[in-house]
Amino acid sequence: MYKRSLRKPDGRQLHLYGFQPISEDIVAPSPSRTARQPTSHLRWHPLRGEWVIYAMHRQNRTFLPPAQYNPLAPGNDPARPTELPVGSWDVAVFDNLYPALSASAHPPPVINVQTRPGLGACEVVVFAQDAGASLGGLPVVHIALLLEVWADRYRELGAREDVQYVFPFENRGAAVGATLHHPHGQIYAYPFVPPIPARELKMQRRHLAVHGRGLLETRIDDEVREGNRLLHVDERAIAFIPVCARYAYEVWVAPRRGAASLAALEREERESFARALKTVLLKLDGLWEEPMPYVLVLHQAPTDGLPHPEAHAHIQIYPALRMAGRLKSLAGSELGAGVFTADTSPEEKAAELRAVKVTID
Amino acid sequence: MYKRSLRKPDGRQLHLYGFQPISEDIVAPSPSRTARQPTSHLRWHPLRGEWVIYAMHRQNRTFLPPAQYNPLAPGNDPARPTELPVGSWDVAVFDNLYPALSASAHPPPVINVQTRPGLGACEVVVFAQDAGASLGGLPVVHIALLLEVWADRYRELGAREDVQYVFPFENRGAAVGATLHHPHGQIYAYPFVPPIPARELKMQRRHLAVHGRGLLETRIDDEVREGNRLLHVDERAIAFIPVCARYAYEVWVAPRRGAASLAALEREERESFARALKTVLLKLDGLWEEPMPYVLVLHQAPTDGLPHPEAHAHIQIYPALRMAGRLKSLAGSELGAGVFTADTSPEEKAAELRAVKVTID
Repeated sequence: MYKRSLRKPDGRQLHLYGFQPISEDIVAPSPSRTARQPTSHLRWHPLRGEWVIYAMHRQNRTFLPPAQYNPLAPGNDPARPTELPVGSWDVAVFDNLYPALSASAHPPPVINVQTRPGLGACEVVVFAQDAGASLGGLPVVHIALLLEVWADRYRELGAREDVQYVFPFENRGAAVGATLHHPHGQIYAYPFVPPIPARELKMQRRHLAVHGRGLLETRIDDEVREGNRLLHVDERAIAFIPVCARYAYEVWVAPRRGAASLAALEREERESFARALKTVLLKLDGLWEEPMPYVLVLHQAPTDGLPHPEAHAHIQIYPALRMAGRLKSLAGSELGAGVFTADTSPEEKAAELRAVKVTID
Repeated sequence: MYKRSLRKPDGRQLHLYGFQPISEDIVAPSPSRTARQPTSHLRWHPLRGEWVIYAMHRQNRTFLPPAQYNPLAPGNDPARPTELPVGSWDVAVFDNLYPALSASAHPPPVINVQTRPGLGACEVVVFAQDAGASLGGLPVVHIALLLEVWADRYRELGAREDVQYVFPFENRGAAVGATLHHPHGQIYAYPFVPPIPARELKMQRRHLAVHGRGLLETRIDDEVREGNRLLHVDERAIAFIPVCARYAYEVWVAPRRGAASLAALEREERESFARALKTVLLKLDGLWEEPMPYVLVLHQAPTDGLPHPEAHAHIQIYPALRMAGRLKSLAGSELGAGVFTADTSPEEKAAELRAVKVTID
């Protein structure tokens, strides 16, 4: 993997990654000329015991612009600059123009709950130059490159003093609020360990202490043995609908060994992981022969300076549909009680996805 | 309040509540003739440490039927029976035809995570006979009657051995998945204390132990003193946008004293609570002069047989829109990390709602 880091005219960082060396001639463009003044802050939610991010400058961010203006397309027109240069890059990462978290956050307001500045980072990860591509449609080697990029971001952001958790995700499709169609994801680098990973790590620590084996490794053993929820498996990676799926077509993708982060994967593990990920994304799109809207998240070890032998990097995919054309709405039970109600069984849904034939290249 | 409890032909319970005595002549109708066999079960999610409900019979439930068939309208036509009889009732409660939880749940399957039967109850609460009404549009006395009905359900369901938490909520509008437009809510009676209330109670217990005063009472003191997020207040009840709002127009409504449940409220407190609730619901509908889609949830003390001096009954309302016509999508950060990002400040949004004039009757 080749990498070049550049600075945009407004001060934001741009990192270009590729299979080939990145030309020295490339200059970083930007639709914005002036340096931004991010003003976000965090407030403590005393009843839920969690941080909430207030980023007031985000309200008017780019919203489904017409097809003729795609800020993620490589562009060379100085009259209509985009975020990305023309050139031989394959994956690009840059600081979000509207960051919820940033290294330059202002002091927070003084109010009657605890506050702190919105430190951290929000990056945009452009998966490919082709605006019509999709993550699952990319070649395995290209997805493996993306995994390497995520690993690079994990190392670089995780090394920062103000970052305790590096969180890559993809919101895919208008149904989950994606405002741009060009295939891309985001990375939030939080100044704390967020509640959902924190809870999972706690459960993983307990399991490891009691059983002497990782929780996810134990789950993977079970999935391989039972087989009826398996979507893909080889010696190094696995994809399956978990026995406790909260969304009808929820899928987890993981290395079989308990690697704490993508940065801990060997090349062959990355390739297997990429193949597993591609397989399930194509199955989800093939199910009803239309792009499945989903939220995809990557859980890894925190970068809080503590040891995390319990961590086991994995992707969770939450498809937004529970049947063709029918969204799963999160409502009273899910949002107000924290209890998911599934209308479907993980075994039935796995059988459906297992039956979808896909071609992997 | 008057009450009559009836049995539907298929065995389900129907409770009619009213300002006037309910006629002895009323017979409980049902669109379903045969007794149901609910088959739901719970599976333990080992990574998140929470229960997930699987209710496979729910997938094909009634979905936005044409206006000419409303199962919640009072009906007397034996050829097209609805769920509710014609008569002098004002609020009605009946067992959901497609319950996620029920007293007759089957033994769970044996799989490689812990399971249990889907015990508990799922009730439908019809707020009024008029299909075109809305909760906020009902007179204060009618809303106070609904609070009394919720209190009655809290006592009756909470007394059951298999019920540890009684959870009334309303999913209002197609944007949050409501499948019927007739004004109604639901009650889930869970066989465990769900994770979100459990977390809130834990934070409340800690606060009470440290400060000797309830967490929500302390928050209410602050809101009354600062005043800029207040939407309604009198001596007995309050409504405000919390300083830590996760949704742009999130509103909390609470009795000022730390009553553990609605069943602990005096008549005057109920009336004040009803007035506060009506005020904010009308403000939400008045903001853009269109019905605001929202999820409304009621948090009360668990009915798990333990003392809960920390509990303080309150309603949380999560409006689905962050701007006129723009849904707040829950995506990567919210669903995968548990971190809400707000584009707006609670103080600004409170100022908007404070400016909406409403008439309370």
